[in-house]
Amino acid sequence: MPINIDRLWKRLERLAAIGADAAGGTSRFTYTPEYVEAKDLVTGWMKEAGLTVRTDAAGNTIGRIDGRNAEAPAVLLGSHIDTVQNGGRFDGPVGVLGAIEAVQLAVESGILFSHPVEVVVFVEEEGGRFGSSLLGSRAMMGQLPEDILQRTDKNGVTLAQAMKGAGLDHERLHDAVRQPADISAYLEMHIEQGTVLDSLGRRVGVVTDIAGPFFLNLTIRGRAGHAGATPMDRRQDALVAAAEIISAAESMARESSSALVMTVGRISVKPGAINIIPGEVVMSVDIRDVDKGRRDNAAAALRHRIGEICLSRGVECRVEELLNVPPVPLSARVIGAIATACRELGLPEKRLVSGAGHDAQVLAQFVDAGMIFLRSKNGISHAPEEWTDKEDIHWGTEVLYRSLLALAK
Amino acid sequence: MPINIDRLWKRLERLAAIGADAAGGTSRFTYTPEYVEAKDLVTGWMKEAGLTVRTDAAGNTIGRIDGRNAEAPAVLLGSHIDTVQNGGRFDGPVGVLGAIEAVQLAVESGILFSHPVEVVVFVEEEGGRFGSSLLGSRAMMGQLPEDILQRTDKNGVTLAQAMKGAGLDHERLHDAVRQPADISAYLEMHIEQGTVLDSLGRRVGVVTDIAGPFFLNLTIRGRAGHAGATPMDRRQDALVAAAEIISAAESMARESSSALVMTVGRISVKPGAINIIPGEVVMSVDIRDVDKGRRDNAAAALRHRIGEICLSRGVECRVEELLNVPPVPLSARVIGAIATACRELGLPEKRLVSGAGHDAQVLAQFVDAGMIFLRSKNGISHAPEEWTDKEDIHWGTEVLYRSLLALAK
Repeated sequence: MPINIDRLWKRLERLAAIGADAAGGTSRFTYTPEYVEAKDLVTGWMKEAGLTVRTDAAGNTIGRIDGRNAEAPAVLLGSHIDTVQNGGRFDGPVGVLGAIEAVQLAVESGILFSHPVEVVVFVEEEGGRFGSSLLGSRAMMGQLPEDILQRTDKNGVTLAQAMKGAGLDHERLHDAVRQPADISAYLEMHIEQGTVLDSLGRRVGVVTDIAGPFFLNLTIRGRAGHAGATPMDRRQDALVAAAEIISAAESMARESSSALVMTVGRISVKPGAINIIPGEVVMSVDIRDVDKGRRDNAAAALRHRIGEICLSRGVECRVEELLNVPPVPLSARVIGAIATACRELGLPEKRLVSGAGHDAQVLAQFVDAGMIFLRSKNGISHAPEEWTDKEDIHWGTEVLYRSLLALAK
Repeated sequence: MPINIDRLWKRLERLAAIGADAAGGTSRFTYTPEYVEAKDLVTGWMKEAGLTVRTDAAGNTIGRIDGRNAEAPAVLLGSHIDTVQNGGRFDGPVGVLGAIEAVQLAVESGILFSHPVEVVVFVEEEGGRFGSSLLGSRAMMGQLPEDILQRTDKNGVTLAQAMKGAGLDHERLHDAVRQPADISAYLEMHIEQGTVLDSLGRRVGVVTDIAGPFFLNLTIRGRAGHAGATPMDRRQDALVAAAEIISAAESMARESSSALVMTVGRISVKPGAINIIPGEVVMSVDIRDVDKGRRDNAAAALRHRIGEICLSRGVECRVEELLNVPPVPLSARVIGAIATACRELGLPEKRLVSGAGHDAQVLAQFVDAGMIFLRSKNGISHAPEEWTDKEDIHWGTEVLYRSLLALAK
């Protein structure tokens, strides 16, 4: 196989060292010095591959090579290099570096594309810093909410301030928007972050649909009180109400026959002392399904249940929507190109859905988009143990390369 | 009534201003500059009342006045001036300032005690800084665990370091220990922090028993994973297990026919991101009852239930005991003195138990101890809304004064 997997693997290792944390993982948040260092390294590799690199108004890094027809809509390959706290080294980088490798091989092979080809590194895909994921792709497709610049990180730094710190002009954020007509297709390679491929012993999968992340933020207000002196029947314990909500969300998702998942990943309690009944709880709920109707019905049912629980416990609950990305089907044309590449390489064609959110789902609402999944060992991601074999990345990048040629040549 | 309630009330107000926080409460943690400032203020009032003041090796502030027989065992009055985070102004200070007022009135009235009388301000009663409450009284009665000096506050400062910062020599901590034979009785006035007196419309109560706080720390370890890509049946979600434990603890306490209460006041989640299944939860459980057997049975039943929940969910749980103070009955002799004082003043004699822990319960294991409770508005404490009427404090301090005369004259 022509892909230079050793070059790609070495780049992965170099990238993983930037933002490496004491717990053995990588913590690299958008617009931080670590992020800028990683972006500069990737920019160098893009240039080495023959791409002309620019940064758009949102901070997305875009490497471009013109084809025979500079006016034709571009074929975009991409992914991200930001991570969650204490994340792994494959989630994101494998798609960015695979894309650079595919373009570099085409250039080294003297292939001239008919369409312009771009490799895009989207900012803040994880939402690890501002709690608002898919930021870069939403900026590109004009899908950011009005108040996005006021969102803050855990230190109270606003997105506007963070952009300024990274040399970006937040007042120009809207300039990142591109017209769908200028994009022919979007193609993203990513680790599965689930167990479907691993349990079947398949290296590569073709994604057909992406579940839409729907994030809620709950603020539950009860009444603080002395843990020793307040009898059980006189309490308005915000955490006991929260516990009932967590259990209810889990039961609803478990009892569903669809791909529905619900997760509470973040919770904090005030005042937060051993001997004080919690007066306030703030927590998140992450709700996903590949079918928008089912997902929205589940969210509505959960909100109804939250209302019942809080009413019965005499506590109040404010529910805010933090993120609502609709689930989307991917493009039959791009799925076809990927499936054909798999067949040509003798790989069994495994179609599957993505439970995780990806920049591809923002693009897919406006342009033809597709995704290649790579096997994740034990389905683990967002943790230092995240792993995808070098050989699987080799096969996946071959599929990416052939799909690119089919779409852009 | 002879008590100078205006002097006492003004001192309460001055004390509340030290460590006043933006949320309208008081945050005054042991050994901090705010604590030292408050202690110095109280020391001045002790001297004004005619007491000779010293600081013991644990940092407890002790004001003493000798009686006719300097060799006789001392009668101790006391409480604390440390607070929880964002606490109220009465919990602790009312007992310290009431004791100073009672002694000052006796001195001003030319009363000569037969026993020495001491007013004690115990450090770290709340455990608000080191999570280990009743520290000062346990130091005095020789009840501190071996590893106490290594306990850390939320900034990682050890108790040993904090003591040094407050001018104390932690290597001499054991010098704070006193012999029970040197203490004739201990008497503490405190707000009820519950609703018994308020719901009955009584100003003052006589405490018969104190529930023992039993604090557990649970570390639940599951497996982190992607919230979108991990199906519900493949999860080891530490927070869902924690939620089930919180609900189980609440049910056990609610269904008990005794004074049993269980509270989870502190919880934290790792990694703590919206889109990551929690891999680890650390949380506290506070278990209390006035009967040691019932309390310990309840704790054992909860630990058994925790084991079942964790087993069924494929997560691990480590359970540590943070604090285990046995519930204690108070002294019939001291209860009698308080009850007599109430009768003399025409106050209805209301006997009740204390759900909250107090330094009195440490002393009560070794010497005759008693407590006077003051009505708490709506039972609220450990919050800025904590309130006890000036008039209730006036009556309570009269009871304290008469009880002191009965015990020490």
